[in-house]
Amino acid sequence: MIRIAVDAMGGDFAPESAVKGVNLAIAAFDNIEVLLFGDQDKIRPYLEATARVEIIHTPEKINGDDEPVRAIRKKKNASMVLAAQAVKEGQADALLSAGNTGALLASGLLIVGRIKNIDRPGLMPVLPTASSQHPYLVLMDAGANADCKPVNLLQFAVLANFYAQRVLGIAQPKIGLLNNGTEATKGNELSKAAYELLAAETSLDFYGNVETKTLLDGPVDIVVTDGFTGNAVLKTLEGTSKTLFGLIKSQLLGGGLKTKLGALLVKDALSGLRDNFDDTKQGGAVLLGVKAPVIKAHGSSNEQAIFNAIRQARTIVESGIIQEATDYFGQEQPAQTEE
Amino acid sequence: MIRIAVDAMGGDFAPESAVKGVNLAIAAFDNIEVLLFGDQDKIRPYLEATARVEIIHTPEKINGDDEPVRAIRKKKNASMVLAAQAVKEGQADALLSAGNTGALLASGLLIVGRIKNIDRPGLMPVLPTASSQHPYLVLMDAGANADCKPVNLLQFAVLANFYAQRVLGIAQPKIGLLNNGTEATKGNELSKAAYELLAAETSLDFYGNVETKTLLDGPVDIVVTDGFTGNAVLKTLEGTSKTLFGLIKSQLLGGGLKTKLGALLVKDALSGLRDNFDDTKQGGAVLLGVKAPVIKAHGSSNEQAIFNAIRQARTIVESGIIQEATDYFGQEQPAQTEE
Repeated sequence: MIRIAVDAMGGDFAPESAVKGVNLAIAAFDNIEVLLFGDQDKIRPYLEATARVEIIHTPEKINGDDEPVRAIRKKKNASMVLAAQAVKEGQADALLSAGNTGALLASGLLIVGRIKNIDRPGLMPVLPTASSQHPYLVLMDAGANADCKPVNLLQFAVLANFYAQRVLGIAQPKIGLLNNGTEATKGNELSKAAYELLAAETSLDFYGNVETKTLLDGPVDIVVTDGFTGNAVLKTLEGTSKTLFGLIKSQLLGGGLKTKLGALLVKDALSGLRDNFDDTKQGGAVLLGVKAPVIKAHGSSNEQAIFNAIRQARTIVESGIIQEATDYFGQEQPAQTEE
Repeated sequence: MIRIAVDAMGGDFAPESAVKGVNLAIAAFDNIEVLLFGDQDKIRPYLEATARVEIIHTPEKINGDDEPVRAIRKKKNASMVLAAQAVKEGQADALLSAGNTGALLASGLLIVGRIKNIDRPGLMPVLPTASSQHPYLVLMDAGANADCKPVNLLQFAVLANFYAQRVLGIAQPKIGLLNNGTEATKGNELSKAAYELLAAETSLDFYGNVETKTLLDGPVDIVVTDGFTGNAVLKTLEGTSKTLFGLIKSQLLGGGLKTKLGALLVKDALSGLRDNFDDTKQGGAVLLGVKAPVIKAHGSSNEQAIFNAIRQARTIVESGIIQEATDYFGQEQPAQTEE
């Protein structure tokens, strides 16, 4: 049985989305159990699943605007904190929340704990692309570490490679380094040094440098970068898509009769396209490098997105990549960088 | 008379686009002269303008894949190099090329030369937004400096502020710092330190941190960042727009009869939208911080884009911002950072 600790109180539609997502997941997968952390009076009205679900009542919760590290230290009985504790103590195999990203990262790092010899776990979303050959783009780090060292990027690549192989089923993932040009000599000090490390790591299929203008065209399956740049790129992708789809909608609905009629006729085709770019299909962003999968679902997650994230947690646990990463890095010399 | 040195041999459609763009500009503006650098036999067939245009024949040119600094040192008679020399020697007031970006940046830095006390000139494109209140987004640095110090970002802000005021006509430009969260304490080491400098500079209207997901919604007129991040963000914006518009086109044209009919009806509305996001309307990206305006037009520039860039060069020269920046930084203590 795979046990998943779900923070029911995080996200814009908590606890309704979380609980309904759990209902869907319990019905779909007979090898999971869910520990549901949150306010029992608010959870019960939505909970249909009876078998394999346990509510752990928590009087506190972490808010979206709480200062992350302070919040997990002060609010010891918050749903997110107790869910992380359950994972740490082996009562659950994975942690899921749609709540405060910083607090969830802190819960992963400080409560669940890092895998030995991994300096910096990274936050890894899986994005849809426009390429049929490389339909996913695994981006790491998307924001867990604002400042990185070259060795961090190498570790991101190794971790993301395990994920792409075992969870996404890509036999030999192509790994790119996000850079400001494709030539090997391009970049800032960090990317130049990371290039050397990645090129020297024979267990990886290193493609070389990738520019952000081609990310959605799928030259690679994985792109690694520092968390500051990765965060900027991820949010630019999301923001641009949202702005453009919004403008298209207002352009089509605000046009004359001809345009409005046309809009009616192309509506299905455009909705289909937009669905293809729904980045919650693969679940949430995974904090990889800690001792159990910690999954950050979008704050705006609906029940389907939460279901997808639970399915993802189950797949990660089944894949055994946490053990694989533990073994891999456990044999390494301790990395030569400080904390 | 304003004299503009145009490298006719750079860009995907050289020299045709460049020369035709010059034709348009000479016809439109009676206070400009153009020095056209390139292969006279290839230029003449397209050149209609006769007055106020001089061809300076150059046997060499810099190619798109030439290594920048090496190219401008070895190819001393390349059109771009001689155009930059003309600016340095006062024969022209501004430099324009659609060619090799790195070589143009190097020409600006090493031939035209930096303004005193400006450590790092920055590359500054002006992007269209979806906001009517802040219709432009001035982004600096978009790629001239892969590694930056905090003081560089402050200087970018001062330079971009002059540009937004005098060239774009924004009385009090709002300036944002690109960051991975809006709170003042967010960011990497660079952005945290740059925040302090920007907040302390009373001559600027500093808005605070801006996340990339809201860039196109126009919370600010100017956003400053290091050239590595800026480059990644700019190319993500361009790549995402291009990919989405491409997918929409193939979705609409590849659909059934209903969709195809609808596509015909909405075509004008969507083309209008796409035109609004044409980022060559404001001209090219300006290398700001050197002793004369150096403008990088898109490699794919057509004659209209070249015309826009010449118009931009003229406006910058008329605005007097180079002198303004020279006076401003000339009074400063030399910045406390090395070259």
